[in-house]
Amino acid sequence: MSKQTKPTILVVNDDGVTAPGIKALMGVMKELGRVVVVAPDSPQSGMGHAITIGKPLRLDKVNVYEGIEAYACSGTPVDCVKLAVNTILKGKKPDLCVSGINHGLNNSINVLYSGTMSAAVEGGIEKIPSIGFSLDDYTMQADFSHCLKWVKQLAQQVLKNGLPLGTVLNVNFPSGNGIKGIKICRQADAKWAEEFEQRIDPYKRPYYWSSGVFELNETGEDTDCWALANGYASVVPVQFDMTAHHAIPLLNSWEF
Amino acid sequence: MSKQTKPTILVVNDDGVTAPGIKALMGVMKELGRVVVVAPDSPQSGMGHAITIGKPLRLDKVNVYEGIEAYACSGTPVDCVKLAVNTILKGKKPDLCVSGINHGLNNSINVLYSGTMSAAVEGGIEKIPSIGFSLDDYTMQADFSHCLKWVKQLAQQVLKNGLPLGTVLNVNFPSGNGIKGIKICRQADAKWAEEFEQRIDPYKRPYYWSSGVFELNETGEDTDCWALANGYASVVPVQFDMTAHHAIPLLNSWEF
Repeated sequence: MSKQTKPTILVVNDDGVTAPGIKALMGVMKELGRVVVVAPDSPQSGMGHAITIGKPLRLDKVNVYEGIEAYACSGTPVDCVKLAVNTILKGKKPDLCVSGINHGLNNSINVLYSGTMSAAVEGGIEKIPSIGFSLDDYTMQADFSHCLKWVKQLAQQVLKNGLPLGTVLNVNFPSGNGIKGIKICRQADAKWAEEFEQRIDPYKRPYYWSSGVFELNETGEDTDCWALANGYASVVPVQFDMTAHHAIPLLNSWEF
Repeated sequence: MSKQTKPTILVVNDDGVTAPGIKALMGVMKELGRVVVVAPDSPQSGMGHAITIGKPLRLDKVNVYEGIEAYACSGTPVDCVKLAVNTILKGKKPDLCVSGINHGLNNSINVLYSGTMSAAVEGGIEKIPSIGFSLDDYTMQADFSHCLKWVKQLAQQVLKNGLPLGTVLNVNFPSGNGIKGIKICRQADAKWAEEFEQRIDPYKRPYYWSSGVFELNETGEDTDCWALANGYASVVPVQFDMTAHHAIPLLNSWEF
């Protein structure tokens, strides 16, 4: 591929511009094209599809990765994608948008809460082929090395084939070595069973810490939860048309 | 219906516990059951499915509505639903969760950005029949009176019939009088075409204001955008399984 036709790759995340996960992702993408990094200036885990309304955004060029055009943004992961497309790239769409690699899984219902996946979804809304990557390790010492071969293969496939309009990929990796391969999956039926621990502050006022337990409601072998539990990387195609089309006839039978 | 069997109705929103929209919604729900209000202590528009991670939450009982059990929460709309279900109602699920009435539309792609709809979706994840209501008027002076008849009918239908598991309702009302009726719709294909205006602060540093223009990409007459433009209230069944099931065979044909 000549220099002129090198693809432009937008790299975003939700753990912040200095997180080891985005550095690992950027390292792979450098081999595939021209990389532009736009990431939050502080961690934004659990921000879902939040956008900043009613206050302005900051966007600063940062020299943290040698030879890479990188920006830190005061907003959410979705804000980062919007600013990247509209202000930094001035409306010239990148050929690929990759988000992550997240420190922690975003499988199953986590697709809704995840800033990593919401950034990828925002890329999809902008009609950019987009992938979110996440690893089953929440720590900042996470080792991403065993994922990089698969990250590269998936990015190459998407650069070559594109993705169906309205679809992005949610890719999750098990931790540790020996990934058995890739499984194309559906989102497992699961939820967080929340508990809130009440404590009392020094001023005698209560406050609450949330601690959730992930609760899997099914045993299907075509789900992302099954794939990860069995040593595979899971790939779920995700759409942002949230219409429950199957429920329309039922609702039409109601009387108003 | 005897007092013992009165349904419990959880009322949430994203505009904050004192917004006129939640007061209007609560007024209708009082006629249908026992009402518990849990809403953010400040406006949380555009928060999507964000949750609070890594810092504690505050939850305070407030006496703003006579005879109504109401709480203000420092977190997001989704946090409000989680705290309501797990801490206030102590795991005893309400019979209905209603969110809104939002000051401003949440039709089409806005379902992703909307705190109002994300709260309803969180209700659905908790297996509570849930509805989000929104009005096409962003002002705090919005007049909700023409919507209330439809809000009541929809809530009564959902209390009577329930909703298919994994499905919640996204209801949007046009502003002004003379709603022609209800249309069951799909989510229209649309997006926000963002523009960011750069300004310079007194310290000579740039900042950015986002100003989006809603861009409808289709003319389908079965969409929420069409219904609203033609004087109907739109009702979209929304699911939180985001799997693009139709894309799975294509991805299985890729080589890894």
